Amino acid sequence: MKMKAAVLREVGKPLQIETIDLAPPKSNEVLVKIAASGVCHSDLIAQESPGTPKPVVLGHEGAGVVVEVGENVKSVKPGDKVTLSWIPYCGVCVYCTNGQVHLCESAFGPMEKGFLPEGSSRLSKDGEMIYHDSVLSTFAEYAVVDEMSCVKLPDAMPLEQAALLGCGVATGYGAVVNAAKVTPGSSVAVFGCGGVGINAIQGARIAGASKIIAVDMKPQNLEAAKKFGATHVVNPADGNLEEVVKSLTDGVGVQFAIDATGNTKATASAWDITRKGGVVVVVGFYTTKELTINAELFHRRGKTLKGSSYGDINPLRDIRNLAQLYLDGKLMLDELILNTLPLEDINKAFDGFHDCCGVNVGRTVVSFQDHSKNEDEQELTETV
Amino acid sequence: MKMKAAVLREVGKPLQIETIDLAPPKSNEVLVKIAASGVCHSDLIAQESPGTPKPVVLGHEGAGVVVEVGENVKSVKPGDKVTLSWIPYCGVCVYCTNGQVHLCESAFGPMEKGFLPEGSSRLSKDGEMIYHDSVLSTFAEYAVVDEMSCVKLPDAMPLEQAALLGCGVATGYGAVVNAAKVTPGSSVAVFGCGGVGINAIQGARIAGASKIIAVDMKPQNLEAAKKFGATHVVNPADGNLEEVVKSLTDGVGVQFAIDATGNTKATASAWDITRKGGVVVVVGFYTTKELTINAELFHRRGKTLKGSSYGDINPLRDIRNLAQLYLDGKLMLDELILNTLPLEDINKAFDGFHDCCGVNVGRTVVSFQDHSKNEDEQELTETV
Repeated sequence: MKMKAAVLREVGKPLQIETIDLAPPKSNEVLVKIAASGVCHSDLIAQESPGTPKPVVLGHEGAGVVVEVGENVKSVKPGDKVTLSWIPYCGVCVYCTNGQVHLCESAFGPMEKGFLPEGSSRLSKDGEMIYHDSVLSTFAEYAVVDEMSCVKLPDAMPLEQAALLGCGVATGYGAVVNAAKVTPGSSVAVFGCGGVGINAIQGARIAGASKIIAVDMKPQNLEAAKKFGATHVVNPADGNLEEVVKSLTDGVGVQFAIDATGNTKATASAWDITRKGGVVVVVGFYTTKELTINAELFHRRGKTLKGSSYGDINPLRDIRNLAQLYLDGKLMLDELILNTLPLEDINKAFDGFHDCCGVNVGRTVVSFQDHSKNEDEQELTETV
Repeated sequence: MKMKAAVLREVGKPLQIETIDLAPPKSNEVLVKIAASGVCHSDLIAQESPGTPKPVVLGHEGAGVVVEVGENVKSVKPGDKVTLSWIPYCGVCVYCTNGQVHLCESAFGPMEKGFLPEGSSRLSKDGEMIYHDSVLSTFAEYAVVDEMSCVKLPDAMPLEQAALLGCGVATGYGAVVNAAKVTPGSSVAVFGCGGVGINAIQGARIAGASKIIAVDMKPQNLEAAKKFGATHVVNPADGNLEEVVKSLTDGVGVQFAIDATGNTKATASAWDITRKGGVVVVVGFYTTKELTINAELFHRRGKTLKGSSYGDINPLRDIRNLAQLYLDGKLMLDELILNTLPLEDINKAFDGFHDCCGVNVGRTVVSFQDHSKNEDEQELTETV
């Protein structure tokens, strides 16, 4: 079938809206009509990275409706609303069988080559192969994905909001709930209140933490943090982080800290302000090769430092839970959508990352929805 | 009452056997006749440290029989066999109420000053105050200790073996069972097979680990490690640590690593050979102020680095369990006792630390037991 997609052909260049070919789903694969796709900071990194296989259709934070299923697909059927997960897991490897499906690497080899987990691409144009990104490629009208990338949603879940569950929300929320295991009444510091950190803050709020301390250099991020549940905000540039934390925690430090900055200095600071027996969870990608922390805080301190990937989620469990939390009015998603754009305007979202004004916190969502109609009226199975 | 004790009067000097005074137990305190006391490497550190308050009676790994209890003591009575814990916990602080009694710091202030938790010393000589070590001072015929330092043992537990449960065994075993939470069938590497590491190895054996890889620079420690349960031994000087670990773990690395070396380079190495989602537990005291590890192993690796103190034990639960494991034939303690000495010869044990031959693994135990009699025949309540 033919469809419109945003294609990256050269490193750092704008995406081009092209009509390309999408092959039908193979066995264990699903054809999804994309309804919405969040533009994540990782997309910008992929756009600017010489290592990204090209030409490629980016986008790894999408939601839509199942149109067609390949052979052997059991968990979804045409008409199902789904959020797409970029870690489809195999269920049989050493990580999956140990309950750590977020660490499954069965899809990583094909992913790095720009393929679906099966080992090839469904995207092309006039016979020229086009690569997938993150085994998904959601900046397009349709996507063929592995069945295990499909998380069936409650029917009532709106799809623009559902798209956000596929990456940033799951990563931040899961870092708090699954990795740190934040408990009701506890104290939590979140370093870096961007797309992931802001969802760590609302994870802490939903988990019932009493003290939620947002730490960020940008005043607008701290304002957003308050909206999403921070009880206190600190700009480390003011130099009083340790003092504020002590005053809020009877002098002992926070029980939990989440570092979503990708900056090893922030991790070292999070380590310092965490109390004995506390847990520091690191979410971000480091750009440096070494992490140095205070060694004296090990013995007799009993602290834990933990890396978290994709919020340590089990997608089928946690993305569904997140959708229900939204429908219950507990998870804020509407407020995360700063604006929606048609696919044709996708480069405006990439430009937004460069101007440093607010997009750090919320998301621009590429939407295929007609906002003049409600969801039931959308022509979800129309093809180009 | 009068008793014999080994008194340290000058930094680095031999201990002197003196007859000193022991005041009776105050409220919530217990008088214990010491049956045996292990000589731990920390005693050597205390002997050589200018910061140790002096004169002092060292010794923090002891067991004996309760002779007399002060007011309000409920958990032990005269005649009870006890192992002494150097972390008596308060039960009401932020750590105790969070189930982390090993982090309770109620006794640390008085401990640093050389006092019992109550805030003063029971030791003196001709009116001159003598300090306690680690709120215990077990290198003496008797000790007055806080009730919460007393862990009641099964009657069948022999006391020389019971002494070892008070520090080294609990620390190594607990690092594996409580901190790392090693699971049956798993793979574990233990760095440093001295007094703590060797017990980490037997903790891993008891917990049912399938691959137990001992890592040590000393061939004699590796030999001992095999005896205590190591399935494989590696001398990192041979340069093939990573290779051996890979060959034993399908190329992915160990699930658990315990670093009992106190050396940050060993920690960095343990971090490198641990698989995704794995746990590294640090037991030793670092002598350097900073720890540097591979930052690339955080994101998408989901590893955990955790400091452990006193094996994260709850003494009343875990020291009793350890005694039962010994009586069940599962925990090796007899093999940890390299030799026993009378109190008069205690300096020989300290000399042993300097000659580097075997004492790294087992313990010299100062014993007040008459080895020609069985325990029931010992004159346990005789006073000087």
